[in-house]
Amino acid sequence: MSTEKLKKLATLIRYWILEATSKADSGHPTSSLSAVELMTALFFGDIFRFDPTDHDHPNNDRLIFSKGHASPLFYALWVAAGVIPEEEMLTYRRFGSRLEGHPVMTFPFTEAATGSLGQGLSVGFGMALNGKHLDKLPYRTYVLLGDSEMAEGSQWEAIQLAAHYQLDNLIGILDVNRLGQCGETMYGHDLEAYQQRISAFGWETIVVQDGHSLPDLIDAYHKALTVTARPTMIIAKTIKGKGVPSVEDTNGYHGKALGADALKEAAALWGELDKSVRARISEPEDRRPPLAATRPAGAIAYRPGDQAATREAYGSALKRIFPSFPNLVSLDGEVSNSTMAGKFREQHPDRFFEMYIAEQNMVGAAIGLSRRGKMPFVSTFAAFLTRAFDQIRMSRYTNANIIFVGSHAGTSIGHDGPSQMGLEDIAMFRTLLDSVVLYPSDAVAAEKLVEAAALHGGIVYLRLTRGKTPVLYKTTETFPIGGAKTVRKTSNDSATIVTAGYTLHEALAAGDSLKEEGFEIRVIDLYSIKPLDRVVLEEAARDTGRLIVIEDHYAEGGIGEAVFAALPGYAVKYKHLAVTRQPGSGEPDEVLRAQNLSRDRIASEVREFCRL
Amino acid sequence: MSTEKLKKLATLIRYWILEATSKADSGHPTSSLSAVELMTALFFGDIFRFDPTDHDHPNNDRLIFSKGHASPLFYALWVAAGVIPEEEMLTYRRFGSRLEGHPVMTFPFTEAATGSLGQGLSVGFGMALNGKHLDKLPYRTYVLLGDSEMAEGSQWEAIQLAAHYQLDNLIGILDVNRLGQCGETMYGHDLEAYQQRISAFGWETIVVQDGHSLPDLIDAYHKALTVTARPTMIIAKTIKGKGVPSVEDTNGYHGKALGADALKEAAALWGELDKSVRARISEPEDRRPPLAATRPAGAIAYRPGDQAATREAYGSALKRIFPSFPNLVSLDGEVSNSTMAGKFREQHPDRFFEMYIAEQNMVGAAIGLSRRGKMPFVSTFAAFLTRAFDQIRMSRYTNANIIFVGSHAGTSIGHDGPSQMGLEDIAMFRTLLDSVVLYPSDAVAAEKLVEAAALHGGIVYLRLTRGKTPVLYKTTETFPIGGAKTVRKTSNDSATIVTAGYTLHEALAAGDSLKEEGFEIRVIDLYSIKPLDRVVLEEAARDTGRLIVIEDHYAEGGIGEAVFAALPGYAVKYKHLAVTRQPGSGEPDEVLRAQNLSRDRIASEVREFCRL
Repeated sequence: MSTEKLKKLATLIRYWILEATSKADSGHPTSSLSAVELMTALFFGDIFRFDPTDHDHPNNDRLIFSKGHASPLFYALWVAAGVIPEEEMLTYRRFGSRLEGHPVMTFPFTEAATGSLGQGLSVGFGMALNGKHLDKLPYRTYVLLGDSEMAEGSQWEAIQLAAHYQLDNLIGILDVNRLGQCGETMYGHDLEAYQQRISAFGWETIVVQDGHSLPDLIDAYHKALTVTARPTMIIAKTIKGKGVPSVEDTNGYHGKALGADALKEAAALWGELDKSVRARISEPEDRRPPLAATRPAGAIAYRPGDQAATREAYGSALKRIFPSFPNLVSLDGEVSNSTMAGKFREQHPDRFFEMYIAEQNMVGAAIGLSRRGKMPFVSTFAAFLTRAFDQIRMSRYTNANIIFVGSHAGTSIGHDGPSQMGLEDIAMFRTLLDSVVLYPSDAVAAEKLVEAAALHGGIVYLRLTRGKTPVLYKTTETFPIGGAKTVRKTSNDSATIVTAGYTLHEALAAGDSLKEEGFEIRVIDLYSIKPLDRVVLEEAARDTGRLIVIEDHYAEGGIGEAVFAALPGYAVKYKHLAVTRQPGSGEPDEVLRAQNLSRDRIASEVREFCRL
Repeated sequence: MSTEKLKKLATLIRYWILEATSKADSGHPTSSLSAVELMTALFFGDIFRFDPTDHDHPNNDRLIFSKGHASPLFYALWVAAGVIPEEEMLTYRRFGSRLEGHPVMTFPFTEAATGSLGQGLSVGFGMALNGKHLDKLPYRTYVLLGDSEMAEGSQWEAIQLAAHYQLDNLIGILDVNRLGQCGETMYGHDLEAYQQRISAFGWETIVVQDGHSLPDLIDAYHKALTVTARPTMIIAKTIKGKGVPSVEDTNGYHGKALGADALKEAAALWGELDKSVRARISEPEDRRPPLAATRPAGAIAYRPGDQAATREAYGSALKRIFPSFPNLVSLDGEVSNSTMAGKFREQHPDRFFEMYIAEQNMVGAAIGLSRRGKMPFVSTFAAFLTRAFDQIRMSRYTNANIIFVGSHAGTSIGHDGPSQMGLEDIAMFRTLLDSVVLYPSDAVAAEKLVEAAALHGGIVYLRLTRGKTPVLYKTTETFPIGGAKTVRKTSNDSATIVTAGYTLHEALAAGDSLKEEGFEIRVIDLYSIKPLDRVVLEEAARDTGRLIVIEDHYAEGGIGEAVFAALPGYAVKYKHLAVTRQPGSGEPDEVLRAQNLSRDRIASEVREFCRL
């Protein structure tokens, strides 16, 4: 396409940006304006390849707006491509519009929900990883990055890992417009500062001194397309607010609609605006990955009484179910010999990706992989998943299918101390809309729940224990999501213990010793914490009148509160045993005892409670 | 001290490391052994200055073990310094010992609890920031870093910010022992890879090819002491497991006690071990910061009915209370014109630090500042505090005093969409042991709660609203932590609404319209969500028999579950209105209505509930 036509399109895109944000009286026009040429050159300069009639085409190039606040530009591109009507721009940020303040999945061309900065490059990394190492398709992944968001450490995680995996199909586009929300960024317009840092990490860097020159940008993209064995960053000097002289390169206009005067000011520079200009995006080659056949999963082989940690069962289950789920991918944060994802890694090194100790990028990568049709199992210590809460939160808004796996949950890990103990993980994952939170107590349940998680879709969290526990269940038991198991029950139970995981075994032992004293105690294995089985809980409340919830987790947001919230206003006596003081190092039994979570302490707490 | 004596100390330190981990049958001897010379040279080579009789001396040098799993080395250093008895090493990882698996604050020389990797450099950054820009003392801050943990983005946040603030009093010591937990790191023994990356960010780098050569290390430290206007990273090639030939530089020995045979193997190389060797750490200059006088805070000036956002009151309150709290420091993640920390910044630019969009480092910095006696207020959007959950979790284990401030909470922000909405923040902060969670509904409450937070100590979270709300309270009202306000009450209330923040105003309006229909509704402002006022809630439950909890937060872990958990087994009728579907863009009223949280929807929900 001629430079002249590209310029016309750029002008029209500016117009739509200003019009939409003015109409909404909200949004980020200045941050959109700086990247107009960057995106026009990409979309309409015969670089980007995308079939708008099939936005899920496996060989479409991918574009992620990591600077999600530049959404008016994003939407305007699709108008310019003739894909959405011009009028829709005027619905920007209105209630019910698919053109939200930051891109979400209701707009079909959104690759990932963004708006929390510093996440898009990781998502792009995941998509590029898929293209190069899984689907082996020649599509490219482009990520538009803001300069302010380069302060986020997650960017540097993605930069490290993308170089490590030699992703020459990943192209970052850094819009160096100098200004953040409050003032100048750390490096201002010093392009060399970015160039130095990014190339030190093994990326190809292409510096564009005038990020508003369409020919220079097209040259830069062409160069990027020839790079091999390393990702490329295009670093372009741009002007925030470009096109509206009175706000150009001026602090104080971030996230502000500019109004009718600015539109007039800009229009004065345009001459007559040709609103009819549209352009086609180039089409992708029609290449698709081979279909993977599915085969039935293998059988589970544990016998009641066997000793096995649920994390071991996790590793075995990944191997076992892979034939049924050929889109399964395992990511781990350099602890696969602890989470036992290593068992899968050994057998399927091509489906396992070492993500090193960089949990934020690991979750972003999983979002990208999920969007390309993969089913990522993301494992690390439960404690360290907190590192990526923001990415986890955003994964929900991207409608990603990810199974998060947190090992070493609870104080029962013992010696390593509180830094390694996942004690907030249930609360964290419960907050997510429609999330599933599972906590198996034995190897059979763990195996079955890995399979249930794989079948479920959406965001699933699987909580795993470090220590070995005896196998409780027969391999014929089923563990539906939303279910619970009553593992101890008589017709005259004095109270019900509701628990899961490691403490289930402590509770059963407490039940044995209480029985000797004449107290019968019901014990419920609440392996599905969200959703949970209200029916079983209500029955227990009615039958026994006393509920004791026991959890190896802090008292807030965990199993206890899930149970209380499920039985609103039930007139039962409640007791809640949880982690209520800072745990230290020690033998698991000692550490649990200090929290009143060991079998002897549970027995005495229940005894006292039953006498009340 | 002679190299020979330093060598003797290093050998003895190796002995203690092997002895303690063998005795505990647990721990990370190989990761400790690689850094023995790095730390021996620092401690006893007349570099480090520290008065062990006054570990809080304001001019002590600071040492943070970011690779917290090398704790046996950390403890052994203090034995070598004659500060703790040799026998104590044998309590390592035992229940009740202050020598935990990873350093915690029960050991008095721990500067910050570590063990979640990639956090120590940020803490050191905070301490160095204090030394250079606040206390203006010549102490230095040293951080021992592992090579694996350099994959964490948080490291690169700290690296960027430390260069930006020209912290020549910060010295990183990178123990490049090549091996992580599962295998080789991304860069193995390629020292240049680290050197390139770190120097690109503006740090001085000093490469030590033999990280076990005491003279070379002492030279390196001396060089580091002369660097000005930039931080320094000493990058040393070391051998994991150094001193035990059979495991040296060998994969598979991470986090494994090596046992008696390894000790024998090592001892064979030592000749006779002189267990009596001890050495003194050099003393610091006795310099202290001037004492800051306190003056009373100014008066609050709002009148009932005034319109003001609680975030605006937050900014005003910081300015107002600063005379009373001269140790106050404000940190913000490049959104101070949104959180309104900017008001304080304008008046006290020397007490405000721009942390850019790097929330993890911001929280780490706050930990460091807190440990040096400052009171950091850490502000960003509530949603973006999730980015630093791991650091927040660890701040509790460091016994830090930090006030976290999350603005733009809830769906009521409207147009920006879900990525910007804090909807998990209450759950996140409630999980922390002894944390305080506050949520003011008007400007007066916000002003008073900022002051209450400053007086409280520990971890406090303050949740703030973007939009303006009317002032409800007189400036003479008090807002003790743990209290609640009954803002609407009659003798024949049919139900009680419990809420806080933006939705309190919606609830009051709903109460007005229900009154016209003949329903009297009690309304409680639960401004202190943790701890909460059980007495007021129980009274309301008894009086009205119906509790409706309303919150602009996801349903899990928030106000609703806090209330349910506070009233265990109360036979009242409950209703819970919370955010239960993905919010979108729109006017605040539209967005709230879609969640049943607007005044009209609250009225109809309550009406229906009261008829049940």
